[in-house]
Amino acid sequence: MSMTHLKEAMIDEMKDLYSAEQQLAEVLPQMAQKATDPTLKAGFEKHATETQTQIGRLEQAFGLLGETPAAITCEAMKGILKEGKHLMSEDTSPEVKDALLIAAAQKVEHYEITTYGTICTWAKTVGSDDVKELLGQSLNEEELTNQKLSEIAEKGINLKAV
Amino acid sequence: MSMTHLKEAMIDEMKDLYSAEQQLAEVLPQMAQKATDPTLKAGFEKHATETQTQIGRLEQAFGLLGETPAAITCEAMKGILKEGKHLMSEDTSPEVKDALLIAAAQKVEHYEITTYGTICTWAKTVGSDDVKELLGQSLNEEELTNQKLSEIAEKGINLKAV
Repeated sequence: MSMTHLKEAMIDEMKDLYSAEQQLAEVLPQMAQKATDPTLKAGFEKHATETQTQIGRLEQAFGLLGETPAAITCEAMKGILKEGKHLMSEDTSPEVKDALLIAAAQKVEHYEITTYGTICTWAKTVGSDDVKELLGQSLNEEELTNQKLSEIAEKGINLKAV
Repeated sequence: MSMTHLKEAMIDEMKDLYSAEQQLAEVLPQMAQKATDPTLKAGFEKHATETQTQIGRLEQAFGLLGETPAAITCEAMKGILKEGKHLMSEDTSPEVKDALLIAAAQKVEHYEITTYGTICTWAKTVGSDDVKELLGQSLNEEELTNQKLSEIAEKGINLKAV
């Protein structure tokens, strides 16, 4: 495989993220189901809907670049979610389970933040301002979700889990 | 397995990170070797040394908690580095390769930032201020490394890669 241009690298990164979002869309409802804290549960449910919107934006972005949406299995998300599923199956108190779910979700968010960040930087560099604009909305959502998870953790769940 | 306390969850997270840092320590010298831009190459070399220090801090932290250092294979880092190794083997121009190396390294940094962040928050919650203090130093280093990578990317490499 030859990739001489940053644009090709960007499209590959979008395929990775398209796979990552699809993998996440399958797991988020389970995370919402396992969560006990009502704010956390509602947060996961909201993010499941957001993830569908983000998948749609990636499809739009492929279109803007004249590409057909395609996924390349995201091994990183596969690993993150493998750990997340393991945590969900562990025998813990509801409070510790919530703390673990937040930790797992923040790993997911950080993966998405860095990947959307890379794509947006590359899109700007190659002059695809429309792609940058579109996926920048998803980047903002991921950053807000991560911040919200930190707030939920710090405000109460961690203290309950001691 | 039963984990009823946040402290046990914290120790498990440290074992995950201990594995992650060890996996990374093996790959960083290859990333330094593959990088063309001298600032990027030097950055990877510096971070390889830092990673050894961070492994030492984790060992110290295990000691502070009365635990023997142990690793649980970090599946997330395994996935991130699997993708990184694939990128390194691809046939690209040196400029695109550098841009890809930065993207891969930022995925690593974000994984470590979120995981050190979780451990530090939990350490504070369970009253292990010494662990929080010690691993907080590693968290700061990871954040600085990530910031530095963004600067290198934005200042020049991405433009050269177009």
